[in-house]
Amino acid sequence: MSKMTPFKQLITYEEALERIQKSVKPIAQTETVSIEAAMDRVLSENITASISVPPFNRAAMDGYAVKAEDTYDSSSSRPKTLHLVEVLHAGEPSKRSLNSGECAQIATGTAIPVGADAVAMVEFTERNEETVSILKPTYPGENISPKGEDIEKGRVILKIGDHLSAAKVGVLAALGKKEANVYMKPTVAIVPTGTEVQKVGAPLSEGQVYDINSYTLNSVIIKSGATPVRSEVVPDTFEELTRALRKLITCDMVVFSGGSSVGERDLMSKVVQELGEVVFHGIQVKPGKPTLFALVENKPVFGMPGYPTSCLSNAYLLLVPAIRQMARLPPKTMTTVKTRLAKRVVSSSGRMQFLTVKLKDGVAYPAFKQSGAITSMAEADGYIILPINVDVIEKDQEVTVFLFD
Amino acid sequence: MSKMTPFKQLITYEEALERIQKSVKPIAQTETVSIEAAMDRVLSENITASISVPPFNRAAMDGYAVKAEDTYDSSSSRPKTLHLVEVLHAGEPSKRSLNSGECAQIATGTAIPVGADAVAMVEFTERNEETVSILKPTYPGENISPKGEDIEKGRVILKIGDHLSAAKVGVLAALGKKEANVYMKPTVAIVPTGTEVQKVGAPLSEGQVYDINSYTLNSVIIKSGATPVRSEVVPDTFEELTRALRKLITCDMVVFSGGSSVGERDLMSKVVQELGEVVFHGIQVKPGKPTLFALVENKPVFGMPGYPTSCLSNAYLLLVPAIRQMARLPPKTMTTVKTRLAKRVVSSSGRMQFLTVKLKDGVAYPAFKQSGAITSMAEADGYIILPINVDVIEKDQEVTVFLFD
Repeated sequence: MSKMTPFKQLITYEEALERIQKSVKPIAQTETVSIEAAMDRVLSENITASISVPPFNRAAMDGYAVKAEDTYDSSSSRPKTLHLVEVLHAGEPSKRSLNSGECAQIATGTAIPVGADAVAMVEFTERNEETVSILKPTYPGENISPKGEDIEKGRVILKIGDHLSAAKVGVLAALGKKEANVYMKPTVAIVPTGTEVQKVGAPLSEGQVYDINSYTLNSVIIKSGATPVRSEVVPDTFEELTRALRKLITCDMVVFSGGSSVGERDLMSKVVQELGEVVFHGIQVKPGKPTLFALVENKPVFGMPGYPTSCLSNAYLLLVPAIRQMARLPPKTMTTVKTRLAKRVVSSSGRMQFLTVKLKDGVAYPAFKQSGAITSMAEADGYIILPINVDVIEKDQEVTVFLFD
Repeated sequence: MSKMTPFKQLITYEEALERIQKSVKPIAQTETVSIEAAMDRVLSENITASISVPPFNRAAMDGYAVKAEDTYDSSSSRPKTLHLVEVLHAGEPSKRSLNSGECAQIATGTAIPVGADAVAMVEFTERNEETVSILKPTYPGENISPKGEDIEKGRVILKIGDHLSAAKVGVLAALGKKEANVYMKPTVAIVPTGTEVQKVGAPLSEGQVYDINSYTLNSVIIKSGATPVRSEVVPDTFEELTRALRKLITCDMVVFSGGSSVGERDLMSKVVQELGEVVFHGIQVKPGKPTLFALVENKPVFGMPGYPTSCLSNAYLLLVPAIRQMARLPPKTMTTVKTRLAKRVVSSSGRMQFLTVKLKDGVAYPAFKQSGAITSMAEADGYIILPINVDVIEKDQEVTVFLFD
C-alpha cells in the first residue's frame, strides 16, 4: 500500500507539449504510392518538372488562330476577312503552317499552329463559307497560354516535406507521374490494459467493463495520418506490460491506456523505466492528470489514463500533435467558434481544464459529466480550455469553442 | 461552327447550390462496418443501450470502500480506525459483504462491495498493519460512479444520422458492440474526357496534355466521404460520352471533366438531355463558368470545366456540398483566417470570383495565374471570395481566407 502515493511533480500542459515536441523524431522511412492514394501524404522527394505544362502554346479560348498583324485594322464596321484553311481540334496537331491572310478554327486547349500568334475569340468573329470576318483587332499572344506558363520544365515544382493537397496531386498528374515517393505513415501501437477490461463482442463478467479507449484512440490515430497497430487487452502486471512493450516497440510509437489508478500508474512507470526513460509523469490538466510519457529505444511511449474522457482529451491535446509531428504533417488547425457560456463554470482544480460543451441555440452548455463517462465527450460538440490561472468563467462570458471534427 | 455560341442563361452561385441541394437525395443503402472503421461514418440505426455503463457501482478513486456512517466523526486529530478485511482489484469482484467497522482496499474502476457506500480517498487515510485510519468523513456515494451514470440501460444513446466521432465510436465500444450499421459511402464516377487528354504514365504525343482533373477530383471525392469510381479518358464524341454515361449511371453520382470549349460543352449538354434533364448550365463564377449540372435517372451528373483550376474550384464550391449531402454528412466547416490583402485585386468579370491566395508574413498574396494553371491552386494556401457585386478589393483591405485542408 506504500505505492499508493499521489503525484509529486506535475508539469504544465505547455511544458508537457514542449517535452513531447523535443522527443518526437519525424519519420524517415519512405514508400511509393499511386497518385490516387497520395492525398494528405507528405512528399519525400523534390519534384522537378520533366516537361513543360502546357507542353505547347495552346488556345485559351475558342475562336480562330490568326497572325495578329492581319487583324490590327479590323473593326465591326470594317471587318478583316481571312481565309479559313483548317479546322483544329484539341489533341490533333495542325498539318500546315499559317500564312498571312489565313486563319484556322481552333478549340480551347488546342496547339496553336506554326505561323499563328493570336486567337480571335469566336464572339468577335463572323463565319462565312470559306472565310471568317474578324470584328476586333488581336494583339500578339492574345488568348494563348504559352508553353510552360503553368509549370516550366526543369523547375523544382514540389518539395520534400510538401503536404499533398488535391491541387498538388494535380501537379503530379500534370507532369504525367503515376506515383510519388512519400514518407510512410507512422505505426502507432495501441495497448489497452487492465484486468477489468473486456474486449468488445465478448460477454461481460461481474466487475468488468468494455474496452473503450483502444477504439477512440484507433479513430484518432487514423484521422491523424498514422496506422494503428492494435493489441489485445493486456493484464496489468509488470511482466505482461513489459512483454507487451518489448514486442510493440517495433512500432514507431506505443500508446498504453489504463493504469489510471495509483498502483497501476506506478507499475507502468516502472515498466518504462526498465526499458527506457520517463520524460514526464503527471500533468496539470483536468481531466487527464495521470498521463505518462517516456522514450523507449528513442520511441515515444504514452501511458494514457484509463478513464475514457481523460484518455481521449489527452489524445487530442498531446497524442495528435505527437503523431502529426512524427508524420511530418503541419499542426492541426481546429475549427473554432466564439460564443457565450450558458452556465457559470468553476475550476477548483488548479489545473488547466478541458471542458466539453454542447452548442445549442447559439450558446455553449457544459457537457462534462466526469472523467469516466464517455458521454462527456460523445454528447459534446467541442471543448473550451480554462487556463490554469482561471477559476471561474461566468455565465454569458465569451468563450472560444474548439469543435471536434 | 453555329454551335460555337456563348452561354445564355448564367445563374448565380447561390442559385446553383440551391438547385443542387434540391436535387441530391441522401443515400439510402446501408452496410455493417467494424467499429475500427466506423469513424466519420453515419449511423443508419438508433443505438439503444443494451447494458448500463458503468455496469456496476464502481470506485472513482483509489482508497478504501467504507460504510460512510462509520466515518462521520473521523478527523485527522481523531481518526476512525476500520478493519481492513479485503483487498479489491479492478475486475475481481468482492467475495464478501462489508460490515460496520470494516473497510476494503479498492482501486479505481473496481466494483464497490455489497454493504459499502463510499470510498475514502487514499490521500485521507493511513494504512496500519490490519487496520486503516480514516482522517476525514465521507458522505454516502462519495467517490463512487453509480451503475448507469454514464449510459443508462434502455436509453437511445446514438441516433440514425449521427456522424460518428471518436467519442461516439467510444460509446459503441462502451456497449460492447463490435460493429455498427452505417450508410454506405456514395460511389462517384469520374470521367475525364477529351481527345487531347492522355492518361498519366503514358508518353505524350504532340498536342496532348496529361489528365489532371480525374486525380484532383479523386482526392476531393475521397476526402468528402465518398468512393471514387475511375473511368478511362473518354473521347469527346456524342456516342462515346453517351456510352460512358449509360455505363456509369449505376454509380450514385457521375462527374465528367473536360468540355470547357464551347463545342464540347454543347456536346455534353446534348448527351445528358438525351438521357435526363439539365438543371443548370453556366454559373456566374470565375473561374468555372461553363459548369453543367443534370439529373439522369434521378442521379446527379456534373459536367465540370476542363481547365484544372476551374474544375477544382468548382469541386470545392459545388461538388463537395453535393457529396456530403448525399453521404448524410454535415456541411463542411472550413478553417478561415482573417488577414489583409497584399495587393489590390480587380474583378472585371461581373461574376463571383474564387481567388486563390498564398499567405506570407501574415498577409494574403493573390496566387491565381489563370484557369488552365494547376499551380494557381497548388501554390495557394486557400482562397477568398469576391462577391458578384464587388469589383475591387483594395490593398490592405481585410479579407477572409478559406484554407485548403
